[in-house]
Amino acid sequence: MLSDHKTYAYLIDDFLPLESAFLHISDLSIQRGYGVFDFFKVRENQPLFLDQYLNRFYGSALMMDLPVPLSEERMKSVLEQLIQMNNLPESGIKMILTGGYSPNGYELAEPNLIITQQELTLPSPEQIETGIRIITHEYVRELPRAKTINYSMGIRLMQQVKAQKADDVLYHKDGIVTEFPRSNFFLVTQDEVVVTPAKDILHGITRSNVLHLAGKHYKAEERDVTLQDIAQAKEAFMTSTTKRILPIVEVNGEPVGTGKPGPVTLHLLQELLALEETQLRVRQ
Amino acid sequence: MLSDHKTYAYLIDDFLPLESAFLHISDLSIQRGYGVFDFFKVRENQPLFLDQYLNRFYGSALMMDLPVPLSEERMKSVLEQLIQMNNLPESGIKMILTGGYSPNGYELAEPNLIITQQELTLPSPEQIETGIRIITHEYVRELPRAKTINYSMGIRLMQQVKAQKADDVLYHKDGIVTEFPRSNFFLVTQDEVVVTPAKDILHGITRSNVLHLAGKHYKAEERDVTLQDIAQAKEAFMTSTTKRILPIVEVNGEPVGTGKPGPVTLHLLQELLALEETQLRVRQ
Repeated sequence: MLSDHKTYAYLIDDFLPLESAFLHISDLSIQRGYGVFDFFKVRENQPLFLDQYLNRFYGSALMMDLPVPLSEERMKSVLEQLIQMNNLPESGIKMILTGGYSPNGYELAEPNLIITQQELTLPSPEQIETGIRIITHEYVRELPRAKTINYSMGIRLMQQVKAQKADDVLYHKDGIVTEFPRSNFFLVTQDEVVVTPAKDILHGITRSNVLHLAGKHYKAEERDVTLQDIAQAKEAFMTSTTKRILPIVEVNGEPVGTGKPGPVTLHLLQELLALEETQLRVRQ
Repeated sequence: MLSDHKTYAYLIDDFLPLESAFLHISDLSIQRGYGVFDFFKVRENQPLFLDQYLNRFYGSALMMDLPVPLSEERMKSVLEQLIQMNNLPESGIKMILTGGYSPNGYELAEPNLIITQQELTLPSPEQIETGIRIITHEYVRELPRAKTINYSMGIRLMQQVKAQKADDVLYHKDGIVTEFPRSNFFLVTQDEVVVTPAKDILHGITRSNVLHLAGKHYKAEERDVTLQDIAQAKEAFMTSTTKRILPIVEVNGEPVGTGKPGPVTLHLLQELLALEETQLRVRQ
């Protein structure tokens, strides 16, 4: 990115330089933490799996009683324009929809739409080779199916994650595993079944794509996963838009399987990278 | 209020007209719903029970790892200045502390402080005479002791409250009553014991004052309260800064006691009003 290159954002109904994108303090995100969002990747200036992300974004908005001010068609054209203006070929785009400028600071108003684009840090080859260490914490998000902006728990737990020299924290409820603050969880059983939690989770787009890819080569299941299942697993990994697939080598100080990234995990990562390439080819 | 009277807010480190008070969209309240707040009343241009409210505000901030940028002493002088600038003798002041302008939209930054003052609508004599109707909903806030900005549940439930022609919704967990989204709950037993839930609640300043006043005239207890206890109660009421004491006459369509505001409730309201007057006299 050139140093004089200005990054633009879309705010409410206009494009403007990111540094000029402000919301009045009466916005219900500031007053009451009320909003939904979504985030997708851009590669070679093309959005990846856009229909799936938009579908989820509109779904989250609906669950939170927030009408999206743009039709999906208009949204796509705004996103296209933003991508052209910014020219950040390898990047991420975040859409936030807030509860709007509420006159009494509590009731929902006309939602405010924010769209920003930023450069993306993808996992390094070293990170994939090393894998990550995680801890667990008992917690279920309020409305797990909606991608709301409420990350108080995840952010507060970061200190604990760092203190324990871990990389992330996996939520569970009564020992039933759900998800990470910003990623989904998978494990591979001793007989090579690829399993991911079914309930009380956000339906990740990468999760859905990985589940589909896994089904082509392995037995793949969405079902309850317990902490005990992890202790007996052969492999484990997390999935997310920015992380793609990251091997998990340690949970609460105990190694997963051999304590090294496993072959099924790495195979699925190759398959996912190939799927991304397909998306790019389709558009050209 | 004169029509040319400008209302001022305090934002980050400066006083400015309310209509000019904006936060950049990188603020962690907008990005991740991360922040705490508090709210107190101003009467005759004097803050009521200010030390108690500041104590709770600083406590909430601490629980959410947000250092308050002003000392309590400096905060008091800023509040005094704002009250003088605005001259809204009967009003409410809200302090919000957000997670700050986060470079990566996730990690805590230097918190942003927002202070606003607005005119207050207190309950009308008719509302007190009629009492309110409530419904119940199973839910516990994430960090009940902290006054965070997360009100997604309360706001989403407003539709249900309206649909059932009720005025508010009382949270409970497995039948153990906790609190309203913005108020505390009390009941009066058949033998005139004043009881309020002890666990998983925000410690309301009005709750604390009412509990103290109740102890002077009745037996007063903080303990578990069940939905069953409400069905057998003589009276019930809610407490909050803006509502003071509001009689509850109906829960989930069933009358509480006689279905009319009760004498203990109305007595405690008189006592609370008298306590507020004392606060005003102390300052003069």
